[in-house]
Amino acid sequence: MTRPSLSQALIAEGLGTALLLAVIVGSGIMGWQLAGGNGAIALLANAVATGGALVALIHTFGPLSGAHFNPAVTLALAATRHFPWSRVPAYLVVQGVGAVLGVLLAHAMFDLSLWQMSATVRTGAGQWLSEALATLVLLTIILRALRSGTTGILPYAVPLAVMAGYWYTASTGFTNPAVTIARSLTDSFAGIRPLDVPGFILAQLAGLLAALILDRALRPTGSD
Amino acid sequence: MTRPSLSQALIAEGLGTALLLAVIVGSGIMGWQLAGGNGAIALLANAVATGGALVALIHTFGPLSGAHFNPAVTLALAATRHFPWSRVPAYLVVQGVGAVLGVLLAHAMFDLSLWQMSATVRTGAGQWLSEALATLVLLTIILRALRSGTTGILPYAVPLAVMAGYWYTASTGFTNPAVTIARSLTDSFAGIRPLDVPGFILAQLAGLLAALILDRALRPTGSD
Amino acid sequence: MTRPSLSQALIAEGLGTALLLAVIVGSGIMGWQLAGGNGAIALLANAVATGGALVALIHTFGPLSGAHFNPAVTLALAATRHFPWSRVPAYLVVQGVGAVLGVLLAHAMFDLSLWQMSATVRTGAGQWLSEALATLVLLTIILRALRSGTTGILPYAVPLAVMAGYWYTASTGFTNPAVTIARSLTDSFAGIRPLDVPGFILAQLAGLLAALILDRALRPTGSD
Amino acid sequence: MTRPSLSQALIAEGLGTALLLAVIVGSGIMGWQLAGGNGAIALLANAVATGGALVALIHTFGPLSGAHFNPAVTLALAATRHFPWSRVPAYLVVQGVGAVLGVLLAHAMFDLSLWQMSATVRTGAGQWLSEALATLVLLTIILRALRSGTTGILPYAVPLAVMAGYWYTASTGFTNPAVTIARSLTDSFAGIRPLDVPGFILAQLAGLLAALILDRALRPTGSD
Repeated sequence: MTRPSLSQALIAEGLGTALLLAVIVGSGIMGWQLAGGNGAIALLANAVATGGALVALIHTFGPLSGAHFNPAVTLALAATRHFPWSRVPAYLVVQGVGAVLGVLLAHAMFDLSLWQMSATVRTGAGQWLSEALATLVLLTIILRALRSGTTGILPYAVPLAVMAGYWYTASTGFTNPAVTIARSLTDSFAGIRPLDVPGFILAQLAGLLAALILDRALRPTGSD
Repeated sequence: MTRPSLSQALIAEGLGTALLLAVIVGSGIMGWQLAGGNGAIALLANAVATGGALVALIHTFGPLSGAHFNPAVTLALAATRHFPWSRVPAYLVVQGVGAVLGVLLAHAMFDLSLWQMSATVRTGAGQWLSEALATLVLLTIILRALRSGTTGILPYAVPLAVMAGYWYTASTGFTNPAVTIARSLTDSFAGIRPLDVPGFILAQLAGLLAALILDRALRPTGSD
Repeated sequence: MTRPSLSQALIAEGLGTALLLAVIVGSGIMGWQLAGGNGAIALLANAVATGGALVALIHTFGPLSGAHFNPAVTLALAATRHFPWSRVPAYLVVQGVGAVLGVLLAHAMFDLSLWQMSATVRTGAGQWLSEALATLVLLTIILRALRSGTTGILPYAVPLAVMAGYWYTASTGFTNPAVTIARSLTDSFAGIRPLDVPGFILAQLAGLLAALILDRALRPTGSD
Repeated sequence: MTRPSLSQALIAEGLGTALLLAVIVGSGIMGWQLAGGNGAIALLANAVATGGALVALIHTFGPLSGAHFNPAVTLALAATRHFPWSRVPAYLVVQGVGAVLGVLLAHAMFDLSLWQMSATVRTGAGQWLSEALATLVLLTIILRALRSGTTGILPYAVPLAVMAGYWYTASTGFTNPAVTIARSLTDSFAGIRPLDVPGFILAQLAGLLAALILDRALRPTGSD
């Protein structure tokens, strides 16, 4: 099999991120509408749809781009020498652009205004701790699988952790700067007020830093 | 192992499609009855039952017929030279006949009139976009797995994507012309008004076309 | 690895069937109590618990006894020469005894009278068709996997089909004579009136017969 | 691959147990808050989040520590010579410390008082039988997989059995002395009154004893 070209990798990475956002935002809209305001049932639908789609998206786009769909993942892989720094800027751009397009796609499917701004307050120490912790968990799953040579588990372990993150954190576990920015552009169940985006992203970067420190502590002795 | 005969493939393809429809329509009836009109819980039951059954059906009938259960899948595989055009007509016929029989089976199990006509309105630009997108996603999962030599993931990736499709689209993700026609014949939770069938099928064919274009864009350089 | 002795196989088969019933009846009691009479949520809990436990039970007891837990499975395997007829009587006995003990165990866990009799009416043509169809589906999944040499899928495909069966059939998919008899002994969510047991078992045997006929139709040409 | 050092194993074991508790307690808080007091939906969220996270945690920390996260598992493995007795004390300490830290983490994420004491009564013969049975089931899944050489199933079979245990037992299936102690320190959905902790732990140890007896009965003849 020939290796995918850079442009193919970027199409896959951007498309996968777009579809991830369409699923997160779309299933949030559908769940909230159908559940008539019962947040638990809406979140259950949201979590199950996201987890299920993510299994398919990682399997599908993994062979082309690695299926990061998340700047925190791309940075963590580059920092641990599993991904070339030279490709990082392009990945971050397509992830950001893809994420925003995914939100527009969800709005179009549900006949809503394409451009919106969220009014949902998501802030405070508890939510920031949640984002830092959930990002640390997500990245540790990935980095440990790389160290153990068990990356075959990731198309299941990552989506299941994301699904759990909807429930065990106070923030519903965004864990992804591109997702966070894009979700500020929807005034629906999955939204986050633009004002609260920087706090979430800083917390995610703190989680990324913690994951890199933990990765060093758990690395095989003798390896760098 | 000897190869299955054509008639065995057609029995498997028709039976699998019939069972898929019995599950979609039957679980919709059960979910709606038990949930007392709570659409979110009914759709959750509908989605979980469909996804679970589809894993079993693909595993069971895949070795005999490829387990397409969907004319859009059959056409996409033929157009990418993964399935002989000569078998396409027979597949489309047994998928259509099987799908209708599956609806009758669901009605018989729930002691309802066998022949019904749906009154559920499913139309509009948002729903058509939903069908095109969800069909594109479904077919891309399949075509990419064929290109990557990872078809072993399909019995899980496809059902999980279908399950997610119930929630992330405005149309609940039919993505299947045979399923769409057959679901016009049930006046229950899963139904679609006959008048709205052509719009859904055209949208699915647009998704099919988009999937073929994307497949070419993502194919290994040097391959046709 | 030495082969398990007959007595070890019988312990595994009886214990596994007992645990399956404890899960079906116990999760039915818990779901109904917590859901305050919402049947859809109770059935969702019932289905998810049964499916999840069944994956673990098949994996755990499969290497010892084959993990039939179901007289219809034992008979289907014997009739297709995948299991010795000489072991059938002992399997049926431990399945029956195990199933009844599992119901008692569930009652003991929930501080209910050990011996009960169900008053839940489950009868009529629709329910019998449901049992025949769901049994046919269950056995076809197993027999096709044996013919295709893909039995490794069964610990997932069977529980997912059982989980779907809770929803797509009008009878919630008992598909198992030992389970049917044992569930007549609980006056809780999962019960069935003793008067209705023979109808269910006859329907399951009709499904068994249909599965054997289908297996012959789908067998490789040249094989017996 | 070099073997992990003891200190790496202990970090992994403690961290994994902490994250398990953060998920159990956190998803219980979130589920209860969102479901507005509907215990069935809260428990469904609790069960799905715990099961999903556990798959990821076992995959992630298994290669470092074996991913016991449970003193009953550590003792069962030592008693059957699958784990050195010399490491047992350190494992029990990090499991206990990790579990308590995980509860604090959940409280911090949800902006609750860090130190709490549960008022939830969980006692009586039915609950003790539940704990003994669910612990027996959990340990039998693990010990049988070791005997059959099929430990690759455990990252799925164990979480699915834990998820089912939330529903089929009257106690929601704690099955873990460290988890039981830690859950006495949260006055939320997942809590247990400190007074009721000893009864649960004694029942779990009875389940451990039963599992060891069953393991001997099912071991290959000729092996010790």
